[in-house]
Amino acid sequence: MIKAGIIGSTGYAGSELVRLLLGHRETEIVWYGSRSYIDEKYASVYGNMFKLVEDVCRDDNLEQLSKEADVIFTATPQGFLASVLTDSILDNCKVIDLSADFRIRDISVYESWYGIEHKSPQYMKEAVYGLCELYREQIRGTRLLANPGCYTTCSILTTYPLVKAGIIDPATLIVDAKSGTSGAGRGAKVPNLFCEVNENIKAYGVATHRHTPEIEQELSVAAGKDIRISFTPHLVPMNRGILVTAYADLVKKADGSLPTQGEIRSAYEACYKDEYFIRLLEKNVCPETKWVEGSNFVDMNFKIDERVGRVIMMGALDNIVKGAAGQAVQNMNLMFGIEETEGLKLVPSFP
Amino acid sequence: MIKAGIIGSTGYAGSELVRLLLGHRETEIVWYGSRSYIDEKYASVYGNMFKLVEDVCRDDNLEQLSKEADVIFTATPQGFLASVLTDSILDNCKVIDLSADFRIRDISVYESWYGIEHKSPQYMKEAVYGLCELYREQIRGTRLLANPGCYTTCSILTTYPLVKAGIIDPATLIVDAKSGTSGAGRGAKVPNLFCEVNENIKAYGVATHRHTPEIEQELSVAAGKDIRISFTPHLVPMNRGILVTAYADLVKKADGSLPTQGEIRSAYEACYKDEYFIRLLEKNVCPETKWVEGSNFVDMNFKIDERVGRVIMMGALDNIVKGAAGQAVQNMNLMFGIEETEGLKLVPSFP
Amino acid sequence: MIKAGIIGSTGYAGSELVRLLLGHRETEIVWYGSRSYIDEKYASVYGNMFKLVEDVCRDDNLEQLSKEADVIFTATPQGFLASVLTDSILDNCKVIDLSADFRIRDISVYESWYGIEHKSPQYMKEAVYGLCELYREQIRGTRLLANPGCYTTCSILTTYPLVKAGIIDPATLIVDAKSGTSGAGRGAKVPNLFCEVNENIKAYGVATHRHTPEIEQELSVAAGKDIRISFTPHLVPMNRGILVTAYADLVKKADGSLPTQGEIRSAYEACYKDEYFIRLLEKNVCPETKWVEGSNFVDMNFKIDERVGRVIMMGALDNIVKGAAGQAVQNMNLMFGIEETEGLKLVPSFP
Amino acid sequence: MIKAGIIGSTGYAGSELVRLLLGHRETEIVWYGSRSYIDEKYASVYGNMFKLVEDVCRDDNLEQLSKEADVIFTATPQGFLASVLTDSILDNCKVIDLSADFRIRDISVYESWYGIEHKSPQYMKEAVYGLCELYREQIRGTRLLANPGCYTTCSILTTYPLVKAGIIDPATLIVDAKSGTSGAGRGAKVPNLFCEVNENIKAYGVATHRHTPEIEQELSVAAGKDIRISFTPHLVPMNRGILVTAYADLVKKADGSLPTQGEIRSAYEACYKDEYFIRLLEKNVCPETKWVEGSNFVDMNFKIDERVGRVIMMGALDNIVKGAAGQAVQNMNLMFGIEETEGLKLVPSFP
Repeated sequence: MIKAGIIGSTGYAGSELVRLLLGHRETEIVWYGSRSYIDEKYASVYGNMFKLVEDVCRDDNLEQLSKEADVIFTATPQGFLASVLTDSILDNCKVIDLSADFRIRDISVYESWYGIEHKSPQYMKEAVYGLCELYREQIRGTRLLANPGCYTTCSILTTYPLVKAGIIDPATLIVDAKSGTSGAGRGAKVPNLFCEVNENIKAYGVATHRHTPEIEQELSVAAGKDIRISFTPHLVPMNRGILVTAYADLVKKADGSLPTQGEIRSAYEACYKDEYFIRLLEKNVCPETKWVEGSNFVDMNFKIDERVGRVIMMGALDNIVKGAAGQAVQNMNLMFGIEETEGLKLVPSFP
Repeated sequence: MIKAGIIGSTGYAGSELVRLLLGHRETEIVWYGSRSYIDEKYASVYGNMFKLVEDVCRDDNLEQLSKEADVIFTATPQGFLASVLTDSILDNCKVIDLSADFRIRDISVYESWYGIEHKSPQYMKEAVYGLCELYREQIRGTRLLANPGCYTTCSILTTYPLVKAGIIDPATLIVDAKSGTSGAGRGAKVPNLFCEVNENIKAYGVATHRHTPEIEQELSVAAGKDIRISFTPHLVPMNRGILVTAYADLVKKADGSLPTQGEIRSAYEACYKDEYFIRLLEKNVCPETKWVEGSNFVDMNFKIDERVGRVIMMGALDNIVKGAAGQAVQNMNLMFGIEETEGLKLVPSFP
Repeated sequence: MIKAGIIGSTGYAGSELVRLLLGHRETEIVWYGSRSYIDEKYASVYGNMFKLVEDVCRDDNLEQLSKEADVIFTATPQGFLASVLTDSILDNCKVIDLSADFRIRDISVYESWYGIEHKSPQYMKEAVYGLCELYREQIRGTRLLANPGCYTTCSILTTYPLVKAGIIDPATLIVDAKSGTSGAGRGAKVPNLFCEVNENIKAYGVATHRHTPEIEQELSVAAGKDIRISFTPHLVPMNRGILVTAYADLVKKADGSLPTQGEIRSAYEACYKDEYFIRLLEKNVCPETKWVEGSNFVDMNFKIDERVGRVIMMGALDNIVKGAAGQAVQNMNLMFGIEETEGLKLVPSFP
Repeated sequence: MIKAGIIGSTGYAGSELVRLLLGHRETEIVWYGSRSYIDEKYASVYGNMFKLVEDVCRDDNLEQLSKEADVIFTATPQGFLASVLTDSILDNCKVIDLSADFRIRDISVYESWYGIEHKSPQYMKEAVYGLCELYREQIRGTRLLANPGCYTTCSILTTYPLVKAGIIDPATLIVDAKSGTSGAGRGAKVPNLFCEVNENIKAYGVATHRHTPEIEQELSVAAGKDIRISFTPHLVPMNRGILVTAYADLVKKADGSLPTQGEIRSAYEACYKDEYFIRLLEKNVCPETKWVEGSNFVDMNFKIDERVGRVIMMGALDNIVKGAAGQAVQNMNLMFGIEETEGLKLVPSFP
């Protein structure tokens, strides 16, 4: 059994990790970390866990935890892991970080977008960006895993094949994203109150959202050159789910014609045809967040708009499963050499 | 492997059966029945099942199905099963009926509340009422199972121990129930449109709801005499969940005092202490439907109001799991002699 | 023009007062009080007021305000008004208090249920309980108005006629109430976050909610004797609205028969037939909170359940209109001798 | 008093017309048309209107109605008005059409996008497109008014100033729109059921939505040349509201620099500074649909993204007020020479 510790287990991503690991046949949770609820019963913080989790919450002590666990998940605010990570922790166990601390390879980009100093840039080189479908081999070998952001997972996976295949002009790429409210976390803030979110939709972080450089980093790899995109997140009155609607100009072929439906579909299949968690929908079916709720799937599709020479790419996932905890477990499975889908063959729940 | 056929597989209860059986290690679905979607791919009716279910929907033919399946689930309108059931079907396989056709032992009560003639009263005698926690032994031996209603499961389980223990006066019992909208089914009706249900709450079926006689039947057994209750259902703007708030006068003890917290708790524990799916909450914790969502749990608790000499009993379940499909699977497990919790150890999903 | 000041103008009830008074032809708001947002533009706290309100928020200074205003509305926490009220304030202007400080005539009952000391019991005697339909004449003459609670307004108005007429046995009265989330206020607390409330329903304050003694006080007046009731509030995933479902035993007539539909209807009409804001629905129509949203109406109806000898009374209102700000304006209209419906002839908004 | 008749008064737009006209001091509704509910009381179809509307629904008879009314509103499916309009109707009264029949000046474009034959192209010439802020003078003089679509009103108003000022390259314009569910109407269809919409978001009509040519028509006028855009609508789990997020490349100035914040703001102000219903928000404030709910306002703002040389334009309105019924009343006011804001000075309701 893999012994797992969770730092930040009482946030929404942390609690989803608990849910998923309880159903994982080769893992046992040995540490429920939560600075806000030290010594309280975990099940009193999350009533759904009543009778399923008997543990109490413990303070954050990564050194100690690293001696008791095989893997540590940090579902913590930006800057936390970078400020406490040590060689001995990484010698003792593997670390899967759900924050952004080791996602951005260029430290100056991280510091510029996040507005904080990176306290342990020396570990950046060995960190692996945990987008399983793109970095599977590197993930298997790492001990420091940077689990991607929710918006980024959806945005990158949905557009990556067409960037990589050169089918779209990445300089024209616009990602309009819509997220459920669990992405905002469990912090008690007025803008996240029921009455403020319900019956409302708004954009936020326009032209400044921190997931932008993460998306650009990975799509630049795909494009083989530096690219910049427009990214706009929106807050939607629902608990879970991210929908990405992305727009880009199609690159005309030598004869001046546009790429065909079949060619674009092939580009997706070339990347994902063996991927269990990616479902390329049938022609003209638009992804819906509800169809992936509670599961680790990413549903995607595209539509050619010949009138304007663009393609609209759409992707949907559950932001706290494939967008956070589910992907973290998928990464853990890879890092420990067990079946990649273990604990993750969850059938989406409807309605 | 148990071969299961589902009649009415494209309703909400039917589709939840599909979700649960896909995660059941000893069952295989061999028939996706749906009169409305004959020959259509099941996954085109329920997009969440894309890539998980490849079958197409088939017409209702119970005779044929009974030859191909070990168990038939009928998630159909009232009157359907009673009108088509035959000896040969029951000889061929077991039947679990999610409709009300065989729930009410007194045919005249059924006909009066449902306003239809019962077409096969001859099978009533062998039918077993499938409230697992109350009729476990009888369920194991039957071939015709009447799966209880959603409101009834919650109402009976929440009040049963105190009726049975004589702690409350059943003549004063009032059940005020609140249900998510999936209970109304997937039929296209104006009152179930998003804009009609959202931001709204109302009572309906006041003093006339068909689950009333079913609750009365079982509580009368518990009381050892015929009892009548008040039952009022309400429609709540959420997908899943039933909450029952029940009120009754406490029966004073010989010395004129009221039953104590400990005595009432003991009455609950006497009934449920070994029940995996029933969670008696800690003192002063009120059940919330969200804490059981997606699972087969029933959470319950009570509060004594000494000022008025009453007890308030509260229970919560997921109406399409323990209130329908989950309980049906629990019954199937019992009927086939396999682990009662198989396929049902679902961790509630939050948020 | 009546000059109005609002203390607590940035809470939900306070902001609804702003909305209503902006549409009131004889009132002008001269003071937007808010301790949390001093010197901030009101419209930056409530974006809906952009371009409609140019004022900035001011600190709480009732003495000063009483010199500038004709009426002060206090939409503040319990205990605030009682701790600052003075003779000079009441000499200078009228006060309409939306908190509970002057609702409960028996100070010891107030102190017992609210757990705080009442700091100015000397004003209790002149305070008038502002349930307009019951105390219209007293309201006209007062300078200190205790605006009723949201649950209480709905609970009292819905049951009052039958208590007063002796049609029901008040000792058997049970009020099961359901409220939208705006009733919980705009304070940043985890239980009121979108993800915690959405897709969820729960009871709270069971047998201990502070609106209980307020309901009992008024129904005792109606009954002509002290009565105690069961009152259970529930939190519903919607912004606005309260629905009350109340149960009571019908009092049999001398001949042993139950009161008839016509007799009960007459009891309602005797109380409310000239009331603009009370709509007694047609037979068998159940009130829905959506039908009164944004308006000052209370919709109500009843259903006789002859099987059990009870009547089910149902009432619906908008908790921050008739349950708070709307009733406060109705009271102001009465206190200043202007048309009672001024500013309140709002057509409910649907959907 | 203006006598108004409403054809299609039981749809959501029709019922909102009723709500608004009940609060309009110079209008009286003389005809509640509804083919689905002939002879039923209007208030039994819309419970919010109980005691406010005593009329029963009448069949559609435009000839007769035109003799009884000064203005007819047709809130009907596409093709209806075009198939019944006659000279005598237009001689008798004014017509305000909320359908698309007279919005698209090029009949072939209409027929191509709507897939139906236009039955009365002869009236196209005198029809005026009723976007009040753009066509105020023409509206005053017409007797046949084509009330714009909900998405189009929001999309055009939000982007028009920058297209007209030549600040953006219209060939790069992408409009990503999000709508509440009332836009889908009150028809009983499975995709509009509560359980299908709730906790879900999806795009639909991708690259094919019928509001596209309407937006293009008006922006082409602004641009002085034919332009084509990308337009993608999304269904959001809320009742009311449309949010538009639009993207376009900024046109560099002669010196290679981008337009400044001040220049773009000036372009908006040049168009809207005297418009009561358009609220240009303060810098960095993003529009939220909740801030305009129930009102006729359009809130808008923009954000420059210098990294990519684009501007993001955002606009929000209530789809059944400014996006339908409110704009229709605004048009009526103009057509009858009364105050443009009469009946429309509605304060947005929050929460």
